[in-house]
Amino acid sequence: MTPFGEDRLGRQLAFLVEIDKLKTVLRRTPLTDNSRLENSAEHSWHIALVALVLAEHAPDGIDLARVVRMLLIHDLVEIDAGDTFAYDAAGYLDKEERERRAADRLFALLPDDLAADMRGLWDEFEAQNTPEARFATALDRLHPLLQNLHARGGTWRSHGVTLEQVMGRMEPIRTACPTLWPWVEDMLCNVWVNGKLRDNW
Amino acid sequence: MTPFGEDRLGRQLAFLVEIDKLKTVLRRTPLTDNSRLENSAEHSWHIALVALVLAEHAPDGIDLARVVRMLLIHDLVEIDAGDTFAYDAAGYLDKEERERRAADRLFALLPDDLAADMRGLWDEFEAQNTPEARFATALDRLHPLLQNLHARGGTWRSHGVTLEQVMGRMEPIRTACPTLWPWVEDMLCNVWVNGKLRDNW
Repeated sequence: MTPFGEDRLGRQLAFLVEIDKLKTVLRRTPLTDNSRLENSAEHSWHIALVALVLAEHAPDGIDLARVVRMLLIHDLVEIDAGDTFAYDAAGYLDKEERERRAADRLFALLPDDLAADMRGLWDEFEAQNTPEARFATALDRLHPLLQNLHARGGTWRSHGVTLEQVMGRMEPIRTACPTLWPWVEDMLCNVWVNGKLRDNW
Repeated sequence: MTPFGEDRLGRQLAFLVEIDKLKTVLRRTPLTDNSRLENSAEHSWHIALVALVLAEHAPDGIDLARVVRMLLIHDLVEIDAGDTFAYDAAGYLDKEERERRAADRLFALLPDDLAADMRGLWDEFEAQNTPEARFATALDRLHPLLQNLHARGGTWRSHGVTLEQVMGRMEPIRTACPTLWPWVEDMLCNVWVNGKLRDNW
């Protein structure tokens, strides 16, 4: 597969080449200019920036660098497991198993110490037992909200998603970033109740 | 432009929406599967991962989280200034001025404290006066090397780039990551001298 050999550096580089595939995994969310669907690599970049810009909404004492690392790797499993659409109940049935198998394969490409470190970050994100993991997930929910608001409703409109479904999906923001919640409620209310999915934003 | 208003959160969100445009800035480098050109947002994600995986090649005592932040924002100016091809001498003549103007506009979208923080990171990357900035630049050079090696020569082949040009471009790796340099030399030697740009990697 790669010409880099089985030594430590060879395995590190082979992993870095393998994850290039995340750029070909398409999400359902459009770019804000509605020109095409976003891929999971550029989404991961964008939410790392969301974390840097909205860090003040994290709980006190949070390790922001750890949040950023978590966000940069949280979607790598989609290289094998694909992106499961947030409102696809059937897809969610085996999502956990598909993604766990993907994590088993992908992180094992790395030398053992790095594999354990990255797998630990991914497991932490999945388990949602730390403030860092919960803040990361809240931002992962906020990001498509921003994209859809600007892309004339984006997946909400194209997939007929209801306000109740979106509110449920945004719940991690309410619990992990209570200072952002009034804005989220206000935006969703404007969209669904007041019909303000404006085309000229 | 955005519906978020001029308060602090409104400005933070407007910045986060504006930078979505980096996903539409195309580089000359192809994906490793040669299916299309890479964009600057997914490139920024990828080199942040390069930093995490190859951190042991950084100088002792480096602030890796700062390197990652720098890499995540270093190409934002391309939203206005475009991606200047590494081997385009004419494009480099006004690159600095175009990018400075872009930085002036983009970071000013943020509240003042965040603008100063991000602009400081970008200025540091450009000035190349800290170990963090030099390590970040070395990785920024290493990444297209990996892409081109796997994409059957990529931009080297499509743009007729010479070994001398690539060696010059890779110079920051030699100085900032001397432990990676033997691998770089070996790879480039294999490609140019031994003709091993293999199609079946």
